[in-house]
Amino acid sequence: MTFTVNPDVVSVVEPPIAEARAWVDGRPPIPGKPLLDCCQAVPSYPPDEALRAHLAERARTFEAAQYAPITGTPALKSALAEHMSGFYGGEVAPANVQITAGCNQAYCLAIMALARRGDEVILPLPYYFNHQMWLDSLGVTGVHLPFRADRGGVPDPEEAAALITERTRALVLVSPNNPTGAVVPPAVIARFRDLCAARGIALVLDETYKDFLDPSEPRHTLFSDPEWGDTVVQLYSFSKVFSLTGYRVGSIIAGPQFIEQVAKLMDTMSICAARIGQDGALYALKHLWDWAGEKREMMAGRRQALLDVFNSGNLAFDLVSTGAYFAYVRHPFDGETAHAVARRLAQEHGVLALPGTVFGPGQDPYLRLAFANLEAERMGELGDRLRGAV
Amino acid sequence: MTFTVNPDVVSVVEPPIAEARAWVDGRPPIPGKPLLDCCQAVPSYPPDEALRAHLAERARTFEAAQYAPITGTPALKSALAEHMSGFYGGEVAPANVQITAGCNQAYCLAIMALARRGDEVILPLPYYFNHQMWLDSLGVTGVHLPFRADRGGVPDPEEAAALITERTRALVLVSPNNPTGAVVPPAVIARFRDLCAARGIALVLDETYKDFLDPSEPRHTLFSDPEWGDTVVQLYSFSKVFSLTGYRVGSIIAGPQFIEQVAKLMDTMSICAARIGQDGALYALKHLWDWAGEKREMMAGRRQALLDVFNSGNLAFDLVSTGAYFAYVRHPFDGETAHAVARRLAQEHGVLALPGTVFGPGQDPYLRLAFANLEAERMGELGDRLRGAV
Repeated sequence: MTFTVNPDVVSVVEPPIAEARAWVDGRPPIPGKPLLDCCQAVPSYPPDEALRAHLAERARTFEAAQYAPITGTPALKSALAEHMSGFYGGEVAPANVQITAGCNQAYCLAIMALARRGDEVILPLPYYFNHQMWLDSLGVTGVHLPFRADRGGVPDPEEAAALITERTRALVLVSPNNPTGAVVPPAVIARFRDLCAARGIALVLDETYKDFLDPSEPRHTLFSDPEWGDTVVQLYSFSKVFSLTGYRVGSIIAGPQFIEQVAKLMDTMSICAARIGQDGALYALKHLWDWAGEKREMMAGRRQALLDVFNSGNLAFDLVSTGAYFAYVRHPFDGETAHAVARRLAQEHGVLALPGTVFGPGQDPYLRLAFANLEAERMGELGDRLRGAV
Repeated sequence: MTFTVNPDVVSVVEPPIAEARAWVDGRPPIPGKPLLDCCQAVPSYPPDEALRAHLAERARTFEAAQYAPITGTPALKSALAEHMSGFYGGEVAPANVQITAGCNQAYCLAIMALARRGDEVILPLPYYFNHQMWLDSLGVTGVHLPFRADRGGVPDPEEAAALITERTRALVLVSPNNPTGAVVPPAVIARFRDLCAARGIALVLDETYKDFLDPSEPRHTLFSDPEWGDTVVQLYSFSKVFSLTGYRVGSIIAGPQFIEQVAKLMDTMSICAARIGQDGALYALKHLWDWAGEKREMMAGRRQALLDVFNSGNLAFDLVSTGAYFAYVRHPFDGETAHAVARRLAQEHGVLALPGTVFGPGQDPYLRLAFANLEAERMGELGDRLRGAV
């Protein structure tokens, strides 16, 4: 090239999932060990048949081929506001909603509306790699909150308080977490909210995996505070709960003034989220909570099967934390990089996992298993492969 | 809000199309003057029936609901590379392609991979407003090349040369242009390319409207230079040519090393463009060039009808330039802001156009008419309304 590339973008790491897939793509399968793909969180089942029929019906229309309003179709915004109000008990209105092309875009828009080059954003370790990649792309410094493996991965608000400077613009929580699966308890979320409010920064709360929470678990009560929009920016995705990853639909829920700023970015970047995906999300919100509940039960069964494997006592790998789609696992190969371990597991044992190091510094002892991709009856096989690797 | 919003984002203007629509939304229609909506470039006809049937078929599949590879589906990348190679005569390979969620995103990704806060990018006046909005969002300075109304809106490479500094990272051309409709002749495009190559900056060429060019007009020969990837970054959209705006599919075509940088941003921002839109674009590229040709003929007919209205000699509005979807028009209300003129046209005469000022400084004398939204037989009515407004 005769031209210069933005050095901030050059500094961004390669997309980790594409790199991990390249370890196995094009290689002959290992005899007797068909690939157990625990690399990317993708539902192993199609969208409900009624949803696919609805999408097909919409695809025949002219309207599905036309732009939607910047912040989303009014029907979807209303339905999502109503859902969040009911789910958490609180007040979320359509004016609080920006529909996005997936939750990655929701994060990108929210962060860009908050921070610019030279600012700081706090990410607990281990972080979702795309979150750090976006900070690096913007020249925003990611300040890392220590990983509390000793507390099942739940980050510490007091440790966070010590990291806030005059350059800090936001603190990001992902709960249930990617990559650890850890659920941040409501009381801890409230403490983070209080900290952010007191220090004048935004609490960005990514709840992509909220629908895989056990319904008996208490939920956070952020939205029941009438002033929630002064501090909270919630991110959500329709991808996992309704198996709509390829349609790219997610959302930001925040105060109306913040949504106005975000909408300027959304118009500039995308004009709108793909309309057919918005139509699909609307249908799902109205009709598919029973279906989603069945899938959540199935996922809970997969998690139990995973726990059984790790609790069997004869596995050299330790389960640090798990929940929703993910398990964060400590491997037994001290002194070896997570990258080397993950690559060997993939190429010799047919288990594709991500090395902890893609989730931040100090993560060489760990691997992320997107176990929810695997049917429960294959979890024993996963255990056998891990045993065979030692 | 207790938190601070990124001042660069605060500085970004409100989305102009949403603001213009608000002038008429919710107001009673003007008796005898149903709205002539020349605000946003949107095809007035649905996608071909066969394409809608294909989309419906795809919507029934699991695959359409799954992630695509970051840079796009291999089939679409191949088909697009082949199309561009044939259309322009040259060498474009799949490794040169990044499929994006529309051409706005293509621009955002390309610019972000080139420039960061404090850098400069040259935009000819009048600019496509989202281009300037993205520069403002990033804190990149938009340096404006003078509008050459005296040359039908074709910008001047020598004037551009004088604007390049050590902070300049790219020069953007949109041809056929939005908002002026002007087509930059191939020889002028080549001079811009030579200038960019000599000065070590990228030539970002937005060809969203290329398929509305008269097929008898000569095309640029950039891609026939084996070294084109050293300088050229082409942007394209499937939205207008195949009436797929709501599906959000576009592309970047550039050197493979630049595509690698862009792909990191795409992964971070979107993971991939919506898969069903990619499937639709592929079908269209393979089957719908005759259909697109018919639409181009129809658009040419609308343009001729517009020219007839402006050439009738009794219109106080002057046609500065026109092509593809747009006409750039000088209004007769000297001393009045374009904003006031556009608003009055909308609210009193039922003609919704954008004020020139949304396309940059010094544009108060002008309005943009997205005339291609109107059937040819309504163009006389447009003339009557404009006459009635004076």
